[in-house]
Amino acid sequence: MKFSIERGTLLKALAQAQSVVERRNTIPILANVLIEADGNQVSLRATDLDIEVVDRAPAMVERGGATTVSAVMLHEIVRKLPDGSLVNLTEDGATGRLTITAGRSTFSLATLPKEDFPVMASSEYSTNFSAPAPVLRRLFDKAKFAISTEETRYYLNGVYMHTSTAESGPVLRCVATDGHRLARIDAPLPDGAQAMPGVIVPRKTVGELRKLLDDDDATIAVSVSETKVRFATPAITLTSKVIDGTFPDYTRVIPTGNTRRLEVDASEFAKAVDRVATVSSERSRAVKLSLDEDRLVLSVNAPDSGAAEEELAVAYGDERLEIGFNAKYLLEIASQVDRENAVFLFNSSGDPTLMREGNDLSAVYVVMPMRV
Amino acid sequence: MKFSIERGTLLKALAQAQSVVERRNTIPILANVLIEADGNQVSLRATDLDIEVVDRAPAMVERGGATTVSAVMLHEIVRKLPDGSLVNLTEDGATGRLTITAGRSTFSLATLPKEDFPVMASSEYSTNFSAPAPVLRRLFDKAKFAISTEETRYYLNGVYMHTSTAESGPVLRCVATDGHRLARIDAPLPDGAQAMPGVIVPRKTVGELRKLLDDDDATIAVSVSETKVRFATPAITLTSKVIDGTFPDYTRVIPTGNTRRLEVDASEFAKAVDRVATVSSERSRAVKLSLDEDRLVLSVNAPDSGAAEEELAVAYGDERLEIGFNAKYLLEIASQVDRENAVFLFNSSGDPTLMREGNDLSAVYVVMPMRV
Repeated sequence: MKFSIERGTLLKALAQAQSVVERRNTIPILANVLIEADGNQVSLRATDLDIEVVDRAPAMVERGGATTVSAVMLHEIVRKLPDGSLVNLTEDGATGRLTITAGRSTFSLATLPKEDFPVMASSEYSTNFSAPAPVLRRLFDKAKFAISTEETRYYLNGVYMHTSTAESGPVLRCVATDGHRLARIDAPLPDGAQAMPGVIVPRKTVGELRKLLDDDDATIAVSVSETKVRFATPAITLTSKVIDGTFPDYTRVIPTGNTRRLEVDASEFAKAVDRVATVSSERSRAVKLSLDEDRLVLSVNAPDSGAAEEELAVAYGDERLEIGFNAKYLLEIASQVDRENAVFLFNSSGDPTLMREGNDLSAVYVVMPMRV
Repeated sequence: MKFSIERGTLLKALAQAQSVVERRNTIPILANVLIEADGNQVSLRATDLDIEVVDRAPAMVERGGATTVSAVMLHEIVRKLPDGSLVNLTEDGATGRLTITAGRSTFSLATLPKEDFPVMASSEYSTNFSAPAPVLRRLFDKAKFAISTEETRYYLNGVYMHTSTAESGPVLRCVATDGHRLARIDAPLPDGAQAMPGVIVPRKTVGELRKLLDDDDATIAVSVSETKVRFATPAITLTSKVIDGTFPDYTRVIPTGNTRRLEVDASEFAKAVDRVATVSSERSRAVKLSLDEDRLVLSVNAPDSGAAEEELAVAYGDERLEIGFNAKYLLEIASQVDRENAVFLFNSSGDPTLMREGNDLSAVYVVMPMRV
């Protein structure tokens, strides 16, 4: 194998590969990236056995071939080379080393046989559709804060992507919950996604996927089977196992009868919650909301350290209500609101509360209260 | 106690106070800041028993007095208040609480009696002088990287500030070393510093001092006794115990007979060292320098992971030399060079190497070689 590639191109392709590689792993070859040169293209493949990413980049290939080297080390080397360098990579079969030269620098890295690299078995994808990057970005970005970190509830350690029917018609829906809060985000159902099986996309995959979605103009090809999901752009293919479990019936958690309506500037609300929460001890960050005629008082009482109170002018026309929430959950939910006011719908101080952005029904959040 | 103060002014004054406070300490009042209001000024005092900082700020004092509250919590509250707020602080003797109001926010913080706050005993300072902030900044900034972190060699855990005589005349000198490398930085001796006792300024004090030195136009009043050192601007007074120990005779470590002279672009050199060091394992980051007629080859050989080599065009006219260094030490020393080329003076591959910036003798660095 022998090829030349522009440093910036190689760096970009390596960035995603090395991020999939787990820093600590007991199987040496999983620390490596599989480099394959063929035609006028190089592909870089990395995996942690659950996620596989393949980056493709144009290169001047003199002699095709494949080998594997440390993903982190190769990434570090390329990162430190001067911008604009032409990087030459040559595999010397005799020494089992990969030689990298650029300018007056020469590196020689230990390799492991390409045959030992675990390539993810290909899958029969029952559903294939495509969606604009900004649409997928919104679905996952707004849902992911609610992913559970409790490993015992493994079926909540991801975003449940599935199809459903909303008032607006059929939708592609992403839901995440940790039992304390829930996010349900909808987008119009793309053509071809109708028969998609519901899949739980693991947290790490959601993080890696995010890097594919930055380009506003990109279209993402999505393929789904019962066990795997694949997201692809012309340059990058991200394949991931999905979580083997059943996502709970979240629809029962979303309250439908909440009628007490609070409308508040989301940013002002978040800042005030953040301020009053300062005095509370880390453990029980409970914030009390006291609602009365167009008036919201946020308060925290932490006997050891102090107390705090802040008043906000809001739109509220229902009867008096006092309800407590975990400050962190309130902050996270309020920070999902992009453009409009936050609209909270309460029932009683013991019931789950619903939040949405203005009158937009395509993003709905639920948060459980706590006793204060 | 009752006073009003502009939020930005209070935040700035609190920033340094809360940074001196140790996050974990077993004596509750050491987590607090002593607030004293008197005349048209407020002072904020914090200590870890080794360092004491007093920040003064103008305030509208309605009723003088003093109390102590959690430094971190007060800082957090003030930081989160809207820019431009007027902050009112009132101590209510009956409840033992400090009430903070700003806009529609009210906070009430637990206090501890001002009498319990440990105020550092004042000292008889035998030497008083003043120096421009940039001069002190250079002295400490260029020396501090060499401070030892070995707690058993406590007398090396700081910067040794003392007077000496250089070729240029009497100097104020800062020296730090950890036994592997050494930095010796000189500035012209300020008036009044002639009889200053040499003091070892602890690492944490050097860090806190740095914040006083950011203002290019500031003049710093320095007071020194055998046991304490004080740095003051009109707004801030930083007092610190000095390390009770004897700084070793560093002059014997600085080689005087090194004649093999290498001159190299410091930035290019540092980048090349960083690149070749990539392939070495974290433990023994040894870089070999091979010198020959105007040519420097940097190389690293890490049998497990790989090898790297880079050639640099340099000015070198002496006989061939091969010498090894810890990559981290070389990088740190090279990054001290601001304007000029780095000039290395070698003796043999087993002897300490000297580095300076061009022909400037006011900053001299020594680094021990390692076998490669």
